[in-house]
Amino acid sequence: MKESALLSWIYGHNRELPPQVSLPPGDDMGAVRFPVVADAAASSASGGGGGGVDVLVAVDQLADGVHVDVAGTPLSQVGRKAITRNLSDVAAMAAVPVAAVAAGCLPRDFGQERAEQLFDGLRRAAAAFDCPLVGGDISMWDHPLLLSVTVLARAEAGIAPVRRSGAAADDLICVTGRLGGSLIELHGYTHHLDFEPRLHLARRLAAMCRPTAMIDLSDGLGADLPRVVAAAAGDVRLTAEVELAALPVSEAATVAADRSGRPAWEHAVADGEDYELLFTIDPTLAERHLPSHIEGVPITRIGRLRRAGGDEPAMVLVDEAGQAHPALDLGWEHQGP
Amino acid sequence: MKESALLSWIYGHNRELPPQVSLPPGDDMGAVRFPVVADAAASSASGGGGGGVDVLVAVDQLADGVHVDVAGTPLSQVGRKAITRNLSDVAAMAAVPVAAVAAGCLPRDFGQERAEQLFDGLRRAAAAFDCPLVGGDISMWDHPLLLSVTVLARAEAGIAPVRRSGAAADDLICVTGRLGGSLIELHGYTHHLDFEPRLHLARRLAAMCRPTAMIDLSDGLGADLPRVVAAAAGDVRLTAEVELAALPVSEAATVAADRSGRPAWEHAVADGEDYELLFTIDPTLAERHLPSHIEGVPITRIGRLRRAGGDEPAMVLVDEAGQAHPALDLGWEHQGP
Repeated sequence: MKESALLSWIYGHNRELPPQVSLPPGDDMGAVRFPVVADAAASSASGGGGGGVDVLVAVDQLADGVHVDVAGTPLSQVGRKAITRNLSDVAAMAAVPVAAVAAGCLPRDFGQERAEQLFDGLRRAAAAFDCPLVGGDISMWDHPLLLSVTVLARAEAGIAPVRRSGAAADDLICVTGRLGGSLIELHGYTHHLDFEPRLHLARRLAAMCRPTAMIDLSDGLGADLPRVVAAAAGDVRLTAEVELAALPVSEAATVAADRSGRPAWEHAVADGEDYELLFTIDPTLAERHLPSHIEGVPITRIGRLRRAGGDEPAMVLVDEAGQAHPALDLGWEHQGP
Repeated sequence: MKESALLSWIYGHNRELPPQVSLPPGDDMGAVRFPVVADAAASSASGGGGGGVDVLVAVDQLADGVHVDVAGTPLSQVGRKAITRNLSDVAAMAAVPVAAVAAGCLPRDFGQERAEQLFDGLRRAAAAFDCPLVGGDISMWDHPLLLSVTVLARAEAGIAPVRRSGAAADDLICVTGRLGGSLIELHGYTHHLDFEPRLHLARRLAAMCRPTAMIDLSDGLGADLPRVVAAAAGDVRLTAEVELAALPVSEAATVAADRSGRPAWEHAVADGEDYELLFTIDPTLAERHLPSHIEGVPITRIGRLRRAGGDEPAMVLVDEAGQAHPALDLGWEHQGP
């Protein structure tokens, strides 16, 4: 079974959802509209009136041996990552986190002290990003640790959530930060544990020059860019052309390349867990308003969308000689941390 | 490590939560206030203005071997229970479910077809209770199935959420339905899988004669009633006196008693997974307005709260001779389904 096949099957039921669902499953977050009702406890008015608040919501899991190696990671960092992974989804919508709940299934022999370290990591990370933990559930069993965190978010006034479905032909493809090697520790920093979700950056970007589509890079550019291409609405099939020479390769990716013997660009495309933003943007808008850095983070134009010819794949990699290569098989489903 | 010790430690941090948290962890659901902002995308007003919508949220897990036996249960029923367990928390607040998200960590060899059966159970149960699934996360690993579901809810106009903390001395203690034997299959019905969360009943009850405190019975009366006693605000310590003869013992509990050789009342107090409502109510209000049935479900007065003397426990069981017995050690933490 592939996660993607099951997800496709699930999204196939989206058309059955009721009208209060303002964003169905399939984006970085879903959303549902809450009616605004009269506050007075004595009132029995129905409160219809059309008003409402869109609540964005997303859930993400952190499983020992899949998304993190609990034995080899400080527990406070495990807790932090359970929160920041979700906040990266909030960033991908250019939204504002409001609150979170966490569920943990702990090995029976985990121990009170280690559990407190873990939940302290969760709580501190949640508080640091103004996303307080307002509830949770704890169970114990004879299997590895599994955390799941659900985050609630709202749109900032004036900034509608950026979906992953709005990309169009001729849009530029851009990423924040640098890609690849996220599992490599370098100068005491390990990206997949220590990254900062791009919350403020995403909202600045959306206010300055609104992307047509945005997603966070959790499974790697080679997996996540085809998702943006597949989600693009309309009748025109698209291909994403990525210039290998333009990829912002991280220092950790060059270290990973030294160790693996594979080229650094391959790590940048396939490693996953970058938690950077991938977005598409109208080229005229980009030319006028897209800066080279936002909040000190580089913004890199890595390619362009165009109409797909015949059976062209969703993504091709263009080498320095101008030769295009299909980027199939670089998709990445979590097999181990 | 005990779940309860870890939870106490977590609740100890509640005072650090920011003001938008309208219900901190420790109740059946938490709540957070979402500001109502101007809808127009062009507006950049801050939208303060004091308006807001309280979003209630709770998360619950369903672990194979702990809360359900996946090999011995139709997968659609497993999915259903993952939803209805959470909806029982919504009922305990007398709130209205709005939407849910589900995370599943599946054994790697689970298979697409079985996964679809499972998620169909989730989806159908969610839809049946007007609580559409708006998001999810799927992972795979080499360990048993773990589902976690987060449900979002709202207060019905005129019915503020009923907390578990409002009980006072002299309040009557009441339960809905019948208790005990929830794992026993009888006439093709197995309560822990097939129960109906008391959503409408709870709101009818709250509108008719508002309880002072309410909780859903997930861990059994012997564990959940002491929680209501402990949560009661104020300086007066309370004891809950439960009349054994008054307990509404289910038919399944009498079958369980025949098999176990223990009295049926013990099953009603200690079995867990009743998913009925336990509530306390002002005795004068109860006398005037509390019916014997709501929507065909019996409402039973099982005892009374009074000031605790000296080192009296949170809960005592009163036998037919009028003799009170401490109800310690009947608390129930999930060990197996």
